[in-house]
Order: sequence, then C-alpha cells, then structure tokens
Amino acid sequence: MKALLASLIGVMALALQAPAQTTGVPAPTNIPGQKYPQLLPDNRVMFRVKAPNAQKVQMDLGKKYDMAKDTSGFWTVTTEPIPEGFHYYSLVVDGVALCDPASQTFYGMGRMASGIDIPDKDMDYYQAHNVPHGQVRSVNYYSGTTKAWRRANVYTPPGYDENPKKRYPVLYLQHGSGEDETGWPAQGRMDFILDNLIAEGAATPMIVVMERGYATDPTKPVSTTGGMAANVFPEVLVGEVIPMIDKSFRTLTDRNNRAMAGLSMGGFQTFQTTMTNLDKFAYIGGFSGAGRLQPGADIKQLYNGAWADPDAFNKKMKVVYVSIGTKEPERMYTGVKNFHESLEKAGIRHVYYESPGTSHEWQTWRRSLRQYAGLIFKN
Amino acid sequence: MKALLASLIGVMALALQAPAQTTGVPAPTNIPGQKYPQLLPDNRVMFRVKAPNAQKVQMDLGKKYDMAKDTSGFWTVTTEPIPEGFHYYSLVVDGVALCDPASQTFYGMGRMASGIDIPDKDMDYYQAHNVPHGQVRSVNYYSGTTKAWRRANVYTPPGYDENPKKRYPVLYLQHGSGEDETGWPAQGRMDFILDNLIAEGAATPMIVVMERGYATDPTKPVSTTGGMAANVFPEVLVGEVIPMIDKSFRTLTDRNNRAMAGLSMGGFQTFQTTMTNLDKFAYIGGFSGAGRLQPGADIKQLYNGAWADPDAFNKKMKVVYVSIGTKEPERMYTGVKNFHESLEKAGIRHVYYESPGTSHEWQTWRRSLRQYAGLIFKN
Repeated sequence: MKALLASLIGVMALALQAPAQTTGVPAPTNIPGQKYPQLLPDNRVMFRVKAPNAQKVQMDLGKKYDMAKDTSGFWTVTTEPIPEGFHYYSLVVDGVALCDPASQTFYGMGRMASGIDIPDKDMDYYQAHNVPHGQVRSVNYYSGTTKAWRRANVYTPPGYDENPKKRYPVLYLQHGSGEDETGWPAQGRMDFILDNLIAEGAATPMIVVMERGYATDPTKPVSTTGGMAANVFPEVLVGEVIPMIDKSFRTLTDRNNRAMAGLSMGGFQTFQTTMTNLDKFAYIGGFSGAGRLQPGADIKQLYNGAWADPDAFNKKMKVVYVSIGTKEPERMYTGVKNFHESLEKAGIRHVYYESPGTSHEWQTWRRSLRQYAGLIFKN
Repeated sequence: MKALLASLIGVMALALQAPAQTTGVPAPTNIPGQKYPQLLPDNRVMFRVKAPNAQKVQMDLGKKYDMAKDTSGFWTVTTEPIPEGFHYYSLVVDGVALCDPASQTFYGMGRMASGIDIPDKDMDYYQAHNVPHGQVRSVNYYSGTTKAWRRANVYTPPGYDENPKKRYPVLYLQHGSGEDETGWPAQGRMDFILDNLIAEGAATPMIVVMERGYATDPTKPVSTTGGMAANVFPEVLVGEVIPMIDKSFRTLTDRNNRAMAGLSMGGFQTFQTTMTNLDKFAYIGGFSGAGRLQPGADIKQLYNGAWADPDAFNKKMKVVYVSIGTKEPERMYTGVKNFHESLEKAGIRHVYYESPGTSHEWQTWRRSLRQYAGLIFKN
C-alpha cells in the first residue's frame, strides 16, 4: 500500500511537472543549441545547470531563486512570471555570482553578465525583418584627452554605401551605468529598431554613434569621491568624438542635424552635454534619466540658466524627450516624473512618456528609442 | 620564542610574497578597473576571486590550479609561466566551470569563456598604432538555405569610404570549432593586424569577411553523427555569402581577388570550400588545420583529383599556405606536418610555417594571418 501510494504520488508529481517541461522553448538569448533556460507560455522561466559538487545554487534575477538538486547533479528552478523584455541575471554558485554558461553574456553590472530576453507581445519592431539593413561599425580612435585608444560603435543606415554623396543627421546614443558601447547594439537591438523605423518611413535615415560613457583625464588628480564628477566624457564627446565622426562619416554638421539621447546615467550625461552646448544640439532625449534637479531647487537656475527664458528655449530646441517605466524603482520613477512636472511648470515644451509595465531595463529603453528616433530630424 | 619564530616566519612569508604582489600589472583582457588577474614579469599570472562560501575553487588554463582561501574569503593562486598570447580559461567553483567576472569573455569552447592575453615580445603588429584604421562592420542577412537571419563581420580597410569608386579584393576568414564570427576581431585582433600591415605597405588593402562557420539546412534530416558532415556552411558561403558581399561592398569579383583562410575547423572548411570551387578562389590558407588526409590515403585522390596534375594546379593557384604551432598537441602537429609533407611530395607549391613556441591558440593564428595577408593579392 505504501509503495503504491508512493508510486501514485510519483506519477502525480510527474503529471504536474510534465506540461511545464514539454511546452518550454529555449530563450532567444541562449547560446545556440542550449535547451535551458526555457521560456514557458506564461513567461515563467525554467533554469537548469549541472553542478554536482555545489552546496547551494541560485538564480538571481533581482529576486533570488533557490535551485533544487536532482540525483544526477542537475539543479533546476522555475521562476515566477518575468516581465517582458531584457533582464540581466546571475548564476550564484555557493555564494559567487557568475555568468550562466548557457546564455549569451552582455556588458552590464560593470562586468560581463548573463542576459535573458523575454519576448514581448509588441516585439516586432526590434526583430530582423526583410527590409534594407544598416550596419554597425566598430571604429577605433585615439583620444588626446584620455591618452588612450577608444572604440565607438557607429550605425550607418541602409543605403549609406550606395549613396556616396548623401549626408546624414547624427544621433549620439548613450548606455547606462555599468554598461558600455556594446549595450545599444546588443541588449538594445538598436540596429533592428532603426532599420524597421526607416523602412516604414517613420524615422529619417540617420547615423547613430554609441560611445563608451566613461573617460578620465590622466593629467587631472584622481577624484576621491569618484563617480560622474571625475568623468570627462561630455568633454571627450564634444571635443573629440563629434569632430572624429564628422571627419570619418558623411554627416550633416549643423545643430539641427545633431541629437543626443541616453538611458539612466546616459540620460544625465545627455542633459549635461546638450544643455551646456545648445549651439551644437537641437534634440535632447533622457530615457529613465534626465536632468538632475535637487529637491527645492529652481529649474530656471540649472545649466547656467538655459531654462530661464522658456520661450527662447522652446524656439531654439526642436525636441526634448523624457521617459520612464511605470515599474521602475520608486526613487527613479519619482525623480524623472518630478523632473517632467518641473519642465511643464516652467513652460518647457517636451514629450513625456511612461512605458507601461517595464522597469529600469532595456524594454523601457527600446520603446523610448523607437519613439524618440521617430521624433527627431523632422525638419 | 615560539611567538617570535612565528612572527619571523610570517615576515619572511610576506617578504617572499611581496615582490610578486607589487610587480604585477592587470592583464589587458581584464574588465576595466579590475586589478586581477595580474601578470608578473615572468608571465606567471596571479588570480584572485571572492568566494567565501565555496568549498573548492580552481583556475583551469588547460592545467587546473587549486586556489587557496584566505580569512577574508578571497581565493588566490599564482600559476606557472604561461605562454605568450591569448588563452581561454575557466573559474571552477565547486566543480562548475564558469567565467571569471574580472575578465572579458569571448565566444569559445562553445560558450562565452574568459580570456587572458599574455603580452608577446613581438606584439607590436597586433596593437593599435597611429595609422589609418579600418572598420569592422556587422552585417545582417537572411539565408535561404538555413531559413534564418545570419550575421557576418566585415572588415573594410582604411580609405574605403573616402574612395567611393575603388574596389577591393576579399579574404574570407574563418574561426575554429566552438568559436564564431566574433573570434577574429576580438581574440584575433585582425583589424589591428590588417591596419598595421596595410600602413607599412606589407599587405594590399582588402575586405575581410568573417562568418559563423555553422549552418544547417532545416529541410534535410538531422544527421545522427552530427559534426561537420551536417554542416552546410561551404554551400552557404559560396551560394549566399559571396553574392551578398559582392552586392553590398565594392569588391573585385574575379578569382584572383578572392582568398579564403581559416583556423583549425575553419582551415578544414577552407580546403573543403576552395578545393571544390577552384574557379572562385586563387588563395588557400589553413592555420592549424588544412586538408583531411587519412593515413595511407593518396593526396592525388582528394577533392575530386584536383591535385592529380600538380603543374596545372600550381599554375592555377597563386598561394597555398599551411601553418602549425610547434607546441600544439602531438596529434594536431603531426596531422598538419604530414599534410605539408604530402603536398611537398606531390609537388604542390605551398608555404609552410611553424609558429615557434605556440600551441593550438590564437597566437599561432595571429602570426599566421600576419604572414598570409602579406602573401595574397600581390598580382
């Protein structure tokens, strides 16, 4: 009787597990040929790793999931439903957070990190379609400021090579903290977003320059506080990257044909750079990061008083764009929303967008790029 | 007395450790800002990772090194001297081989893998110098054979954009097993090698196409043995990639302006592809991998008898190049050397190179590319 019961329970357990195991598909971010992680139809994810000698194995997707070990040394876990879009995650083996060898890695969290991309119902706009495709080019150049070789990734739109007389507007597009110049092409899928927008006539063909948002001047004393204060990236961008790009690519070089945008830290850098170089940029985009407004501060004092005369500013700037995900951490959501309200109160014309259901992650930024790229260079 | 002795031993131990600890420098493959792994002057490497809860931590560089834990939860080890050049390695935490979060990762070993690059005395040729630089472009295209989107990396030489009428010869350059189209630009540093060769006039400006050497035709039954037999990459390369490249780039399209080369598996694929398409290629390069010659087989029977008439072949083909590292595993070294001797015996003109002191690793292949790129397209 006992044996029968155990056997019955075993069958029931198998039956309960079976649907989940048979309906999963490998995530698009898996290394080709890897069956796990698997996506279930309700956006739960099954992870499975071999670690026969480990004491404890977890998956960390913001929330940490303990994995269970079977007799063959495999550890598995099925998560709760995960929001659509791209997420960094870590495999934690006996307390050490590492990359999952079954997934592609991306530069994020200040190191190479595993990523998983959960398909979105509205994901067509960042998939490869049968439309003309641009190229992402890696460009090496020497920076006199940082005294080092740097690399930029440059998207050239479809038709760039076929029209050797044509010149294009340029969007400078920045990643967030802990990421680098590979973020927008890899995690952000910016090439497919631009290809698709251009194909449907929703965006003007443009060059997009993606740089590494960290730069230190070795001749200056090292800041004891570190952080963005010591970062001379805005100076490198304006003083070195823009001239290099205007020399190496067929660009339109007036301010009406130059935009900047960035996410999180890159959004702060965008406002810092453009608001102090209004003669060089006519479009400003901050995705989950915009101007820095301390509580109680007067927005009209910011950036050398550039917002003191809203009419003059509105006349000069063609697009100011600010966005945030509705599920971002409270501090971030409130910060950006307050900034938007301050702009509104001050009479600064801008577009404000809340991405429904997404957090401080790439799905918010893919959506923001899709919108922003459709707003700029519409002269 | 006992305490004094212990203290003295402690000081001596510190003194013994001190020189090693103070003279190390971060490896060029470290994530920016990471102090470890550190290179010591004699090419030993110090690794250090935090894993307070792990039972056993090792570094696997082909040879496995056990790491020792200190009281603060850090594990360290200093390796024996490591040969110059690029090596994949794994951090092994309680038996699980993973990436070291302190190093950059590269697609190798069929997954993202940590890499460490030990400077070579003769390393100038693959460093960035103040010379004109080409670009590496990522190109998306749809393959009718594999029914999937594929990506190629394409190096365009310095001056490509500035000379919109000029056409260039094309080298198709393949990675090895477990690697992909990112191998040559990342691990191989092929862009710097070509930039430098072109700057000194040692190589003809050329386009270099790097593709993913795996392709399966979903309409064909899955091979039970798997492996290269099921790989339709040569068909994809000749039938789809070459026409796509000739359409998208300003190429010279005759066989005297088309070369192929590859490393290891890519070397076998190169011989397989070129020797069965002699009307399309005039240059063949196999780095640590060339033709497949079974023991006792007659080389004149290979590839539909293409080597049966050596004079005709020598007249038709401009360069055949075969190379191997002197420290490669015996089976590989002997295989390639035997192949070279068979070519020689059959009267097939070719260049044979042994890379001194290097194994089945990227230093052998960087050196081979440097030589091969200087031999081709010298019409």
